Amino acid sequence: MNQLDYFFSPKSIAVVGASRNPSKIGHVVFRNFIEGKFKGRLYPVNPNAEELFGHKCHKSILEIKGRIDLAIITIPAALVLEAIDQCGKKKIPAVIIITAGFRETGNADLEEKLKGKLEKYRIRAMGPNCLGVYDPYSDVDTFFLPRYKLVRPARGEIAFISQSGATGSVTMDWMAMKNYKISKFISYGNAADVDESELVEYLAKDPKTKVICCYFEGVSRGRRFFEVAKKTRKPIIVLKGGTTEAGTRAVASHTGSLAGSAAVYASMFSQTGIIQAADIEQVFDYARVLSTQPIPKGNRVQVITNGGGFGVLTTDWLIKNGLVMAQMDPKSMDKIRKVSPPYVTLKNPIDLTGDTDAERYRVAISAAMDDPGVDMLITIILLQVPNLSADIIDILSEFSNERKKPMIVISSGGRYTEVLKKSMEDFGIPTFSYPQGAAEALKALYDFSRKKAA
Amino acid sequence: MNQLDYFFSPKSIAVVGASRNPSKIGHVVFRNFIEGKFKGRLYPVNPNAEELFGHKCHKSILEIKGRIDLAIITIPAALVLEAIDQCGKKKIPAVIIITAGFRETGNADLEEKLKGKLEKYRIRAMGPNCLGVYDPYSDVDTFFLPRYKLVRPARGEIAFISQSGATGSVTMDWMAMKNYKISKFISYGNAADVDESELVEYLAKDPKTKVICCYFEGVSRGRRFFEVAKKTRKPIIVLKGGTTEAGTRAVASHTGSLAGSAAVYASMFSQTGIIQAADIEQVFDYARVLSTQPIPKGNRVQVITNGGGFGVLTTDWLIKNGLVMAQMDPKSMDKIRKVSPPYVTLKNPIDLTGDTDAERYRVAISAAMDDPGVDMLITIILLQVPNLSADIIDILSEFSNERKKPMIVISSGGRYTEVLKKSMEDFGIPTFSYPQGAAEALKALYDFSRKKAA
Repeated sequence: MNQLDYFFSPKSIAVVGASRNPSKIGHVVFRNFIEGKFKGRLYPVNPNAEELFGHKCHKSILEIKGRIDLAIITIPAALVLEAIDQCGKKKIPAVIIITAGFRETGNADLEEKLKGKLEKYRIRAMGPNCLGVYDPYSDVDTFFLPRYKLVRPARGEIAFISQSGATGSVTMDWMAMKNYKISKFISYGNAADVDESELVEYLAKDPKTKVICCYFEGVSRGRRFFEVAKKTRKPIIVLKGGTTEAGTRAVASHTGSLAGSAAVYASMFSQTGIIQAADIEQVFDYARVLSTQPIPKGNRVQVITNGGGFGVLTTDWLIKNGLVMAQMDPKSMDKIRKVSPPYVTLKNPIDLTGDTDAERYRVAISAAMDDPGVDMLITIILLQVPNLSADIIDILSEFSNERKKPMIVISSGGRYTEVLKKSMEDFGIPTFSYPQGAAEALKALYDFSRKKAA
Repeated sequence: MNQLDYFFSPKSIAVVGASRNPSKIGHVVFRNFIEGKFKGRLYPVNPNAEELFGHKCHKSILEIKGRIDLAIITIPAALVLEAIDQCGKKKIPAVIIITAGFRETGNADLEEKLKGKLEKYRIRAMGPNCLGVYDPYSDVDTFFLPRYKLVRPARGEIAFISQSGATGSVTMDWMAMKNYKISKFISYGNAADVDESELVEYLAKDPKTKVICCYFEGVSRGRRFFEVAKKTRKPIIVLKGGTTEAGTRAVASHTGSLAGSAAVYASMFSQTGIIQAADIEQVFDYARVLSTQPIPKGNRVQVITNGGGFGVLTTDWLIKNGLVMAQMDPKSMDKIRKVSPPYVTLKNPIDLTGDTDAERYRVAISAAMDDPGVDMLITIILLQVPNLSADIIDILSEFSNERKKPMIVISSGGRYTEVLKKSMEDFGIPTFSYPQGAAEALKALYDFSRKKAA
């Protein structure tokens, strides 16, 4: 067993600093476990309380009788070293130190002492100054924000490692709303012990994770990260904070990382096959496509639409991204002609027009899936039209389950559209609101397929 | 009175083809007027019905006793010419021809005859093959889609002219969900009479419209459009469909416009001061900032945040867009220092950190608004943090009302965040989810300010 497993599937957890005061971090963390679905044993540690949510409080870690897999530390910085001593004596393999007030506030000394103790006891630690872990499979959830303020995403296959706690947690909340799903979220803070290199290496072997996403402002061990990334076969998508001089200065005030030059990082990304994203939304646009879609055989895209303008704009964006408009065989087009009125456009884009029903889509998608001249599909579905209803989702999910060719959906509109898009995400169909994001994501998928072939 | 006024504030409307059959366009259009808030007189015209929603049906337009300002035509193409003859005899000044089946389906002859009749009777017409008009001030609403499928946006100051009906209507639905607001929406279809040039000229004088947005694939009278755009003082934002060769071919199958070369259009846009957007979302990112924010004196931006990572990414995107990080006076920073804990970062970005309350924002925004070294503000507000609540909106709206300097907000997250962002939009504060869109919109505002100065 890898010692890092204890962070993600512990059988027993001690919350050091679990408190009755709702404004304390230790209160929120413990309460989230109580109200959540974590199946293991829970031990609150607090010398000043007898009991918390029906659980007996322990005066110290050493007082706990059972074995502890993971300790979550929420007490003030000045008390952390002593707690680590206790964790060491108790032989706890993994510790998440949420507490801030170390290197990031100038207390480099305290952080060095912490490192020494972690090494001495061979404890693996996340933090300090971090949010820790959210794992929807094991229900480990160390966010110190209540669920009504920060909704948690459902189980999926995208892992997200964030050097910035705020950026990470805000992204979780946004992903939950969009019904984008996650395998593991990790905020590792100052990385006194576990860092991004080791996490990428760990996630590369995680059977629940298909795509690894990272936000960081700098890596602590460049050479190591390079080697790990080069070795990893799963797609790694990185959003690097600090790619300009001014951005690098902002990094110095934030995580204090050596942001390095943009050119050095860009070169590392290209040599290791890392996919660089430009903003947060793009990270997950890429990740959703790479985690759900099969590898395309080429770069020829067929567009199927029920709105001409969206078809035109999608064409422009595909070309701008270096992709090619597929040319379907006339025999494939004949299949669509048979079920369509004469004003349907049988070119690329195929325009099924505003009076289309779901069946017309089924025939058109099927023809494109079977046509050897098509490598990938963009299906544009404007759901405001009169003859389309939710049954279009059943049709899409059938094609999606076959996994013949990559297919993504562009669908734009209001609440009704958003609800149906969430259902499509449930079936592993990546959805986009506008042509730009969709075309860029297919480009990322195609680029990754070429790297994989190389 | 301009004859086009009859499209947007008619006192009486005839719906030609108003039907009892809910699947007919004429039914939906008439019903939307009945269920909407239109204050004028309504006349259904249908030779086969006695009465519709309590309104007496007229056998023909000529049978109507009262004066008609606007006729909406929803009958089959073959019957349209005769209806226009009646409109001419009845001296109806404005007609919206929703009916399709003219030039766009190869019936160029029929469209020429229609043009001849419109000229003969001096009728001004939108269409054929269009959605017509949505004006939230007068409640003219000719969308043939029910409101539960396509929600209508509220009253605002952004006009949108769309050559593509589907692109336009989908965008309305999306804008309503986002609480982005509109002054007028116009889908002009084949432009047998009124075209984009005349509409831009009209909207340039419309007191309700501050920014004019257009989606088109080509303009019918290039020279005329050039002159109108050059003369117009209001910002014009254009999304041009067909900027690549393949896109141009797609245009030929869609609107059949002469899409022209991307270079010719780009040159026209730059010579006339038109702002070109790259995708639909960007059109309204630009429009929201240009319609609500004062003109900046320069390009120096101060970023205020409560999350370091978002501050870093915003800095990167501002620099990539050619904007400059402002340097605030140390005295301005002292004002913030007085109300802040020592770990707050007083640089650019100002990082108020995760424990900020609304008051800390108030002091920081006030200091930046008063600092002569700051031209524009980006305020990043991550609403998941414990000490921020809805009162931040009151503070933002006060600064927004003063209109001293442009200020936009970046706020990302789930449903709670989206609700508060909609409130901000109500106060004329443009909101963005991520740094890229925000920085690009400020760049568009700054570029427009330079054109205005030139």
